[in-house]
Amino acid sequence: MKKALPYALGIYLSCTTVSLAQDILVNSDRLHQHLMHLSNYGKNDAQGSDRVAFSTHDMAAREYVQGLMREAGLEVKVDFAGNIIGKRAGKNSSLKPLAFGSHIDEVPNGGHYDGPVGSLSAIEVIQTLQEQNIQTEHPLEVIIFANEEGGVVGSRAMVGQLNEEALKVVSNAGLSQAEGITRIGGNPEKIAEMARKKGELAAFLELHIEQGANLYNEKVNIGVVEGIVAIEWWEFTFTGKANHAGTTPMSLRKDPMLPAAKFILAVNETIRAEEGKQVGTVGKIEASPGVGNVIPGQVKLTLEIRDLSSEKIWSLYEDLEKQAKKFAEEYGVEVSITHIEVASKPAMADESIRQMIKESAEALGLTTMSLPSGAGHDAQEMARIAPMGMIFIPSKDGISHAPDEFSSKEDMANGANVLLKTILTLDKKLN
Amino acid sequence: MKKALPYALGIYLSCTTVSLAQDILVNSDRLHQHLMHLSNYGKNDAQGSDRVAFSTHDMAAREYVQGLMREAGLEVKVDFAGNIIGKRAGKNSSLKPLAFGSHIDEVPNGGHYDGPVGSLSAIEVIQTLQEQNIQTEHPLEVIIFANEEGGVVGSRAMVGQLNEEALKVVSNAGLSQAEGITRIGGNPEKIAEMARKKGELAAFLELHIEQGANLYNEKVNIGVVEGIVAIEWWEFTFTGKANHAGTTPMSLRKDPMLPAAKFILAVNETIRAEEGKQVGTVGKIEASPGVGNVIPGQVKLTLEIRDLSSEKIWSLYEDLEKQAKKFAEEYGVEVSITHIEVASKPAMADESIRQMIKESAEALGLTTMSLPSGAGHDAQEMARIAPMGMIFIPSKDGISHAPDEFSSKEDMANGANVLLKTILTLDKKLN
Repeated sequence: MKKALPYALGIYLSCTTVSLAQDILVNSDRLHQHLMHLSNYGKNDAQGSDRVAFSTHDMAAREYVQGLMREAGLEVKVDFAGNIIGKRAGKNSSLKPLAFGSHIDEVPNGGHYDGPVGSLSAIEVIQTLQEQNIQTEHPLEVIIFANEEGGVVGSRAMVGQLNEEALKVVSNAGLSQAEGITRIGGNPEKIAEMARKKGELAAFLELHIEQGANLYNEKVNIGVVEGIVAIEWWEFTFTGKANHAGTTPMSLRKDPMLPAAKFILAVNETIRAEEGKQVGTVGKIEASPGVGNVIPGQVKLTLEIRDLSSEKIWSLYEDLEKQAKKFAEEYGVEVSITHIEVASKPAMADESIRQMIKESAEALGLTTMSLPSGAGHDAQEMARIAPMGMIFIPSKDGISHAPDEFSSKEDMANGANVLLKTILTLDKKLN
Repeated sequence: MKKALPYALGIYLSCTTVSLAQDILVNSDRLHQHLMHLSNYGKNDAQGSDRVAFSTHDMAAREYVQGLMREAGLEVKVDFAGNIIGKRAGKNSSLKPLAFGSHIDEVPNGGHYDGPVGSLSAIEVIQTLQEQNIQTEHPLEVIIFANEEGGVVGSRAMVGQLNEEALKVVSNAGLSQAEGITRIGGNPEKIAEMARKKGELAAFLELHIEQGANLYNEKVNIGVVEGIVAIEWWEFTFTGKANHAGTTPMSLRKDPMLPAAKFILAVNETIRAEEGKQVGTVGKIEASPGVGNVIPGQVKLTLEIRDLSSEKIWSLYEDLEKQAKKFAEEYGVEVSITHIEVASKPAMADESIRQMIKESAEALGLTTMSLPSGAGHDAQEMARIAPMGMIFIPSKDGISHAPDEFSSKEDMANGANVLLKTILTLDKKLN
């Protein structure tokens, strides 16, 4: 019955009845047009996007997006880190702002959907509220983060995690972060002043493409992100004895390739043996001297484990460490292990926000799946200072960071509608 | 009783009774002194040898060795390839010469025993015959081959296998083979003229250190070489799908690292499962893109198999090829295989010469072991034109081509005595 109400009625009632306001939908044609237009900034011959942060393409795209934000009635500013922030007043100015957004920069030869889907959907949510004449209780903030692909630079700055060393790092456009931030209207010298305190925001939401094939393969509309995984890296070095491949009998060899091979298989088996969505990868392997007619003296390989729980990662690691030592002993070689700092802490999504995202999607007749985000996002940093929620939409074949990245117009609209509905629910519940 | 005879008597009788001549022994002190002296040519700070072919060290050492050869009564010449050939007349000039020798050049930062043991022992054999006033029926030839370590250059030239392309290859001293050969007194333009025909020599013998630890570990005095192995190389390429290590669930991966790991273990198991001395090695492995946070799209590795029997090598390969395909299928990836030309054909030692070496050693109270040579030697080339035999002596810990290469004075004398006795036996039997 509720769903059968004409939109106009829903809108009319929304000022007084939040439950009916849930039927407001974004303009999917407009959202899609905006995304198509944004794709032109930096489109290359491979039909991919070269809109790396701080490039002229990025700067032009930022102008375009700020125009859309102003059209939607937002008061737009660029902060010291170059983040674009659009503010909309709430009925109750004493309430903390509800913030949401994503980024519009891309990796070199990247796709057109990655961060833009969430960025343009955030603006579309505001435009829709504007058109429907809805004012939320909380102030709203749309944030388009600077240089996400170059190391979540804008969101790190916003939560006080971007130090002077990080500002010297050269980004994809060939400028240091400090130079790039200056170029897009920020002020690297004042980054320390801009850090927002924990509790300053009521919540932060981000819509993004999945960057994996779970939703696409299972034909599920909406991913309710459980959290953004922690990442740990190690380097395993198996050291045997380099020797002549012709004159050293099989029985006298101390070949580190053999325990390394057993270890690679053990990583796959051990990671898969346990329930859960943890992943483990051996992405790099190197034998030295690394020639066909010499038994290697040393084999080095990397192990990466990701999971929402750091505890689980370390427990899996300890199991694998034991196995590595056993394999090394079996073949008479040594193994040494170095933990490599990658500084990626897990960020859990807020339990009640997850529930709201799920219910919002279901109320729209959409199917949902709970899943972790295996990739990093600005929301991971924002979770340091605010309750965080993330919404995923399907990405064709799970492809991301590549020219053939694709999400359908319908999937984008679904994501934007779930974002809109979740914001309205949060606005009501946090009141 | 025979062994109790005083040397002088043995020598006296040797002119008429070969069986008693078997008790003639080389002068082990002199042999050792010669080796110590030769080691000074090119000895580096690491106590290793930098006597690479065509270097000034090599040239000085060649002068020294030619002096020793003349002292032993040999008529010395350098052929068009720079091989040093010392001739001694036999009683019967219509018989084909019995040839033996090795090389004195070394790999960069090599050892002092490798080829010099066999080269100086060959000269010591002549010196001993000279001192004992023994003239063999066959003419004798001591051959010190040029640039063995740079690709058995001198012996290839002698058997007509060194073409113009090979002469352009730059050797360890930084000169092309042609320039180097000219420098040591050869004439690269006349190489084609010097090729010896099959059947021109009665036999060729080479004494060498083992370059492996079979004799040393088993405390056996003399290795009777069965032959010099064939070598075959392949490159296996496992191709899956490169993907994000964070966002790709374990169950959706096509990770080529896994069948590659199973294959590495299968190589070890398959090669060892069969009786024999075949060896199989995976010396090189490379994952691409080869970074810790990306599931590799491709893993390439090399397979090398060596054995005296090419048939056995190919049968093992076919078994491994099947397994590689099975593993690839198991993990949903592709495998392609390329055979790499290394052009190393097997060279079997002559059956009757092997028997003579064994009996000569046993007559001297020495223990023997039959074994293949996993490394290449000048004898491998000489086997193309003459019945070939090779004698190995122990090398400490199997080390070779390194400064700490070592064979004891006693082991060297044992080798030289077996060489001497085998030559005398051959001289008698081939008569």
